[in-house]
Amino acid sequence: MEKGYIQVYTGNGKGKSTAAFGLAMRAVGAGLKVIIIQFLKGQKYSEHSSFKKLGIEYELYGTKEFIIGEPSEEVKELARNGLKRALKAFEEGYDVVILDEVNVSVYMKVFSVEEVMEVIKSKPDNVELILTGRYAPQEFIEIADLVTEMKEVKHYYQKGIQARRGIEM
Amino acid sequence: MEKGYIQVYTGNGKGKSTAAFGLAMRAVGAGLKVIIIQFLKGQKYSEHSSFKKLGIEYELYGTKEFIIGEPSEEVKELARNGLKRALKAFEEGYDVVILDEVNVSVYMKVFSVEEVMEVIKSKPDNVELILTGRYAPQEFIEIADLVTEMKEVKHYYQKGIQARRGIEM
Repeated sequence: MEKGYIQVYTGNGKGKSTAAFGLAMRAVGAGLKVIIIQFLKGQKYSEHSSFKKLGIEYELYGTKEFIIGEPSEEVKELARNGLKRALKAFEEGYDVVILDEVNVSVYMKVFSVEEVMEVIKSKPDNVELILTGRYAPQEFIEIADLVTEMKEVKHYYQKGIQARRGIEM
Repeated sequence: MEKGYIQVYTGNGKGKSTAAFGLAMRAVGAGLKVIIIQFLKGQKYSEHSSFKKLGIEYELYGTKEFIIGEPSEEVKELARNGLKRALKAFEEGYDVVILDEVNVSVYMKVFSVEEVMEVIKSKPDNVELILTGRYAPQEFIEIADLVTEMKEVKHYYQKGIQARRGIEM
């Protein structure tokens, strides 16, 4: 790719990760090389088999359990490996690097803003970097070229519906 | 699928169609049957080859040219065929039906709110219906179970950058 930018998808509404996945799908369709680095998520999601079929690289740097309170050293170590993977991906010629749930990971103190900012600042000029997750820190918003806030206007979860396979997971 | 809902992705920010595409990708990964009916768009997009690879059905009901002012009879006819296609898809056992750019199509008077509302109201209970595009009419928002507004916080287009293959198209 000639020129890559920094995109942030944040907010409390549905569609942040899926927007990044849709972008990944478009990018590989154009012959671009894409990697999705997923933080917090350690479990199997329905989209993973589609990633494989399309040749979208994806790696999980989260545990299967939800994090409650202060994250454990194990969780932090795992997540930091994800950041290192991003740095490596920059050298490996990926056109699009997606750091899924990186924003909320900072919020949950899995790693610091500064640690992620170092990665962001190492982005080669021809790489598109996508950061997803609610609670994007102000630093990310300031450095980004494109920021979309997914705002929840209405959500059926408010009616108490469980996550459905193929739609939410 | 056991129970399907109505989702709306609207707003002036980037990520509405891609969120729907990411959802499509997740759905087929779970073995669900998906169709994307695209309004206004008649041209080739990079994601189309990925749709094919994943077995996501997609059909275009738009012209290659952008619509300026009052849409022609040809444009209206084509778009109405898209709505008819949706009704047929409801009978054909699709689990997820995506009406891409249907919101803005109403805004551009390609068809009326009422014509689309008829389709929405015909949705079988086990079908997930996704409506994308800016300027979602109030009627769609009211009938929907989930509404996300993609709000543009910052956009590099404001700096005058052209659409890039694999990222915007």
